[in-house]
Amino acid sequence: MSLPPLPTIPALDRAPEAAIRDLIDGLAKPKGSMGKLEDLALKLALIQRTATPRAQRVVLFVFAGDHGITDEGVSSYPQAVTAAMVRTFLSGRACVNACAGAAGVEMRVVDAGVAADLAPSDILIDAKIRCGTRNSAREPAMTRAETERALEVGIGLVGRHEYATVDVVALGEMGIGNTAASALLMHRLAPATLDACIGQGAGQDAKGMARKRAALQMAASRSNAAEPLDVMAEFGGLEMAMMTGALLGAAAARKPVIVDGFISTVVALAAARLDPAAADYCIFSHCSAEHGHRLLLEVLGAQPLLDLEMRLGEGSGAVLAVPLIRAAAALLSDVASLADVVEGRL
Amino acid sequence: MSLPPLPTIPALDRAPEAAIRDLIDGLAKPKGSMGKLEDLALKLALIQRTATPRAQRVVLFVFAGDHGITDEGVSSYPQAVTAAMVRTFLSGRACVNACAGAAGVEMRVVDAGVAADLAPSDILIDAKIRCGTRNSAREPAMTRAETERALEVGIGLVGRHEYATVDVVALGEMGIGNTAASALLMHRLAPATLDACIGQGAGQDAKGMARKRAALQMAASRSNAAEPLDVMAEFGGLEMAMMTGALLGAAAARKPVIVDGFISTVVALAAARLDPAAADYCIFSHCSAEHGHRLLLEVLGAQPLLDLEMRLGEGSGAVLAVPLIRAAAALLSDVASLADVVEGRL
Repeated sequence: MSLPPLPTIPALDRAPEAAIRDLIDGLAKPKGSMGKLEDLALKLALIQRTATPRAQRVVLFVFAGDHGITDEGVSSYPQAVTAAMVRTFLSGRACVNACAGAAGVEMRVVDAGVAADLAPSDILIDAKIRCGTRNSAREPAMTRAETERALEVGIGLVGRHEYATVDVVALGEMGIGNTAASALLMHRLAPATLDACIGQGAGQDAKGMARKRAALQMAASRSNAAEPLDVMAEFGGLEMAMMTGALLGAAAARKPVIVDGFISTVVALAAARLDPAAADYCIFSHCSAEHGHRLLLEVLGAQPLLDLEMRLGEGSGAVLAVPLIRAAAALLSDVASLADVVEGRL
Repeated sequence: MSLPPLPTIPALDRAPEAAIRDLIDGLAKPKGSMGKLEDLALKLALIQRTATPRAQRVVLFVFAGDHGITDEGVSSYPQAVTAAMVRTFLSGRACVNACAGAAGVEMRVVDAGVAADLAPSDILIDAKIRCGTRNSAREPAMTRAETERALEVGIGLVGRHEYATVDVVALGEMGIGNTAASALLMHRLAPATLDACIGQGAGQDAKGMARKRAALQMAASRSNAAEPLDVMAEFGGLEMAMMTGALLGAAAARKPVIVDGFISTVVALAAARLDPAAADYCIFSHCSAEHGHRLLLEVLGAQPLLDLEMRLGEGSGAVLAVPLIRAAAALLSDVASLADVVEGRL
């Protein structure tokens, strides 16, 4: 099957790398003393194609969707929790709101496929494709058309006029059952053994884990899909497909994309399999406690900024990395050179 | 020799721990899913004695002082860089300003003993005890009276009226030669072998490291001091003694104290040796790349929040941890309970 039109992601121009490194080395600090923030400053400069990168306006998009595979008991929470948590986001009282507030990040919630009606809200983007996916243990989660539609909406998201001044995009998700869907995507796209990809998600006891494993084995044995969008349609989620599009769209607009935890990193993997150039625009925020995330980060060659044993999702880890990204941008944009200091030009 | 009057640091009341843990477990999130931020939320609640901790107003105090042991060539930078960097802080164009700006932290620079005249500034606190310490390789760095005076000024600092509304205090330092001084303090107070405490500081080649080791061995063999303030007087720095006081004063006022890198952690060790209760008020922000810091954190049983391979000092790591601390406080103060979500009370 042919691919839908994907946006053109410019290959990262590495020609200015040496010049940017020289600027960083020439700052008023011992060489290398800002550690990983120096690499991050370089990355921001290359992505934004400027020696004075910015990370002032950051918007977190939290993509929400339901998963039919919850019928198999893969999650310890009922499906209705997705809508309940989305309403909590909209009320400003979820953990991600606390993190976004602490980090000075704007938040939007994108309803890609929540299986409930949601009241309008200033920060809610209604992009519902369908009320949840089908049960991928028994049939494809989405049709190819639904998958492509979700992808397209995501691709167009960051390009909207109201986001023209956004410097950096952060991505998060909410969807009961989406660690199960993500395990299947990682299994096929990394690829890795299914066992290496299955974790406890929101929290599962031994019986729950056995149910989750059985359901995922049933799903995996149902289809040999290997092409990224086929895998997404067979096993993925509406919020995951839409987030994949948003990542591609942001990269095409040369905006750095902050990737959150396990599910978001699986999305980054899917995006990279659709267009390898996308990976260069990703900033991996943290290593989560979800089994499989560390291996997944290794597959992507990613070195996350934080390791706080978090496993919440929602974009919570992504926004907590924002101050580090702002500090990295400010190194190049605001800090004096050693020459300025020595020669008294302050 | 008797100790000068130290402030009374209340022992941390752990009685509410179970109740606070229950509150955290009852939030709208899977149990444990906020990882280290949950432990941090508990710590803030216990220190501030409230179920709704705050980390809104945070002030970073950067203590600056010069070190006579630079005469031995222990640093790759000349002593004048201390004053030059302090001027850079005051101009708002140093790395720490970039970090503080990114994290929304106010900054004050405390001249504890810079060997130069500094022009007045709104954010400069003139508390100069002396223009730098003596060369501790040859004689005591400070008199006992100078040490106590620095300590006392530090103790009184956080109690000033203008800091009454400060929720959390962050500590940083600037002083060419102060990794050398810190290595001697760690050696005596941890205690640890001198070699385990000596690192490259701002950057030293093999020859420079040989000079640094020789100077520190000379200093260590000159005095058997083991009592914390004697060790501080023999080998320490004016900025380190004053920061020790500030840490004790902040803890006495039940304000959480964010500890920065190697030098600041040595100060935390000195404070803990003066009063073990002080350690409970410390939040260790990051593990720096300076040799000795990891061992020092282990000695203190500290689990730092960040590991970004930074080794700058200035309080840069301390302020970068502030958004994490704000998010942790907001968990308890702003996030809905699961019961609120389930029962529709948002």
